[in-house]
Amino acid sequence: MSATVDELHVPAPADYHVHVRQGAMSALIAPHVSAGGFQLAYVMPNTLPPISSTEQALQYQADLQRIAPQTQWIMTLYLSPALTPEEIRQASKAGVRGVKSYPRGVTTNSDGGIEDYEAYYPVFEAMEQENMVLNLHGEVPSDADKGICVLNAEAAFLSHLHKLHARFPKLRIVLEHATTAAAVEAVQGCSETVACTITAHHLALTVDDWAGRPINFCKPVAKYPSDREALRRVIKEGHPRFFLGSDSAPHPFASKLPSATTHGSVPAAAQSACAAGVYTSAILLPLCATLLESFGALDKLNGFVSTNGRRFYGDALGKNTAAPGETQPAKDVVVLRRVKSEGEEGKVPGAYVLEGHQDMQDSDKEKVSVVPFWAGKQLGWAIV
Amino acid sequence: MSATVDELHVPAPADYHVHVRQGAMSALIAPHVSAGGFQLAYVMPNTLPPISSTEQALQYQADLQRIAPQTQWIMTLYLSPALTPEEIRQASKAGVRGVKSYPRGVTTNSDGGIEDYEAYYPVFEAMEQENMVLNLHGEVPSDADKGICVLNAEAAFLSHLHKLHARFPKLRIVLEHATTAAAVEAVQGCSETVACTITAHHLALTVDDWAGRPINFCKPVAKYPSDREALRRVIKEGHPRFFLGSDSAPHPFASKLPSATTHGSVPAAAQSACAAGVYTSAILLPLCATLLESFGALDKLNGFVSTNGRRFYGDALGKNTAAPGETQPAKDVVVLRRVKSEGEEGKVPGAYVLEGHQDMQDSDKEKVSVVPFWAGKQLGWAIV
Repeated sequence: MSATVDELHVPAPADYHVHVRQGAMSALIAPHVSAGGFQLAYVMPNTLPPISSTEQALQYQADLQRIAPQTQWIMTLYLSPALTPEEIRQASKAGVRGVKSYPRGVTTNSDGGIEDYEAYYPVFEAMEQENMVLNLHGEVPSDADKGICVLNAEAAFLSHLHKLHARFPKLRIVLEHATTAAAVEAVQGCSETVACTITAHHLALTVDDWAGRPINFCKPVAKYPSDREALRRVIKEGHPRFFLGSDSAPHPFASKLPSATTHGSVPAAAQSACAAGVYTSAILLPLCATLLESFGALDKLNGFVSTNGRRFYGDALGKNTAAPGETQPAKDVVVLRRVKSEGEEGKVPGAYVLEGHQDMQDSDKEKVSVVPFWAGKQLGWAIV
Repeated sequence: MSATVDELHVPAPADYHVHVRQGAMSALIAPHVSAGGFQLAYVMPNTLPPISSTEQALQYQADLQRIAPQTQWIMTLYLSPALTPEEIRQASKAGVRGVKSYPRGVTTNSDGGIEDYEAYYPVFEAMEQENMVLNLHGEVPSDADKGICVLNAEAAFLSHLHKLHARFPKLRIVLEHATTAAAVEAVQGCSETVACTITAHHLALTVDDWAGRPINFCKPVAKYPSDREALRRVIKEGHPRFFLGSDSAPHPFASKLPSATTHGSVPAAAQSACAAGVYTSAILLPLCATLLESFGALDKLNGFVSTNGRRFYGDALGKNTAAPGETQPAKDVVVLRRVKSEGEEGKVPGAYVLEGHQDMQDSDKEKVSVVPFWAGKQLGWAIV
């Protein structure tokens, strides 16, 4: 793939970490997975209530298939005391592929998250036997008395990763949305059963980009330029155990940016925090191509957005998939074309809006509006 | 001063770093210096245009005296190529006391800031001769290629402090609004001519408090819990070269929190950053007492908010000042009383609002509204 390539053939893109929500929000954004160029979505279980049983997972999967039948929805369960080894075996039989662990309170809908892993060892043993994947949100909760804040919460988590990997060497583990050089190094040092997802937005952002810019605020927060460089470098090296998990996480714009509305005499914005999450699903494949090209890794795009993750998870490419470079791309190959001039093609919309949908609830007011990452900016690639 | 004290006598509080703005904003907040318990305000020159001549400084001082004659306004100049040794001598004669250096682009109205100090050595020589103070905004500009971001910008600046101090050992220098353990250590290691201001809000905040909360976003950003601990510790130790400079920096609420208003199709909040600054003037002395008590340093309050700074700057206590503990406090002593129960006394207002003032301009819309730090929270002390 030369530097002057104007067309990219990407085999069956797979996003191994997506939040597709419920209700009206889901109706708005679940179809964006496909629109953003992705054929497979590995779905996070932090809904309200969380997906904690096989039955719930299958119902959620059915809902998503109804909204967006063109997408392969892969389901996960939420790690909590409700989860038993028996449930793991049942879930595995039903096609549920992973279990997601959230430390308590660190991100959206994580109030039921875990505090101590040892209580879950029987569950992990069952997962190891069933070949299910453990997906780790790798942050410990902030605790000023222990010196822990959002900046070092990921580094402080890595001892848990090492301990779990040592105790369950055959358990497949994914450290999700790595943001630090320390996390990259930790996963590189693990054996073949441990992989790592990286989001698109953490390839673009540093702390300076979310300081005073709620639109770029997410958990884990983007960190130092040297951390971003480590994420870029491991992709540029083509490391096979690092791949895309977008962590695309839509929030209604009103919760992303608390307004000047007052509660009593105090503005809401002085009391409530902006929701943490960056929304990328709708623009994901062109965004990944644009970002990887920006740091000289365009030749690693297929590995990053498809083959590395599919290999780790054991999700074969579709049977119609053609190799990149074939004259007639088969139906599972997504073709990207270089955007030659600034204009509507490749321009990120200001917002995605759903109005008057049957799934809307009173709390949605009259519409659901999500502002994407890079709103209004120009992407270098567009889906053909 | 015992732990059960219910009344504090604070001699002539002095805030050695305040932003009092211009126009309608100034009309709203300049009187707050006195209302917040402070008798002396050392005024920052980053107005629009910046205060870069003696004439401007005197005009600005006259404006402030007109608005709030009860406050002693001490003026500074903005370090820029417009500043000459001759101007320094003239300024000194006119009672201007300091020169503020802003690295280019790191905070509000700093576009004209400096990039290299050596060009200013003749100015610093004149300042040394005139016994003027150099006030340093101690951050280098962010530069991802050099690994510099808002988190390490202060630490990266400290070599400039050391270099200036070595070259001008008699020049009095204040490292403003220190936020890191590294900065505290650097100033501790300097000789008697180098001091350091600490804001009230940096004694409360860590990075977690401004992550997703624009109301707590300021420059320099609050950092790790260990950094906050270093700030608290040096105050608790009663180090005489560390004292309050509130960096109270009001912004209209609308610029603190970009709205969902769209520019074309893209929400403004996706494009513009929230203004950096935390507003504390109006509640400053009760806030300082509340914070210092929270980490066991209430007995260091007088040093922190008055005598340490006055000693460094050579601003004598007013002749009527009584020592703490006297039965009849003289008029320069401010008395604080412990707030015994939750209620309106000691409750921080949700906003300070100015409507229909003669200094309002079209850009002010119909009112100027500033949301203070800790809006709606309860303070432990109130001014009698």
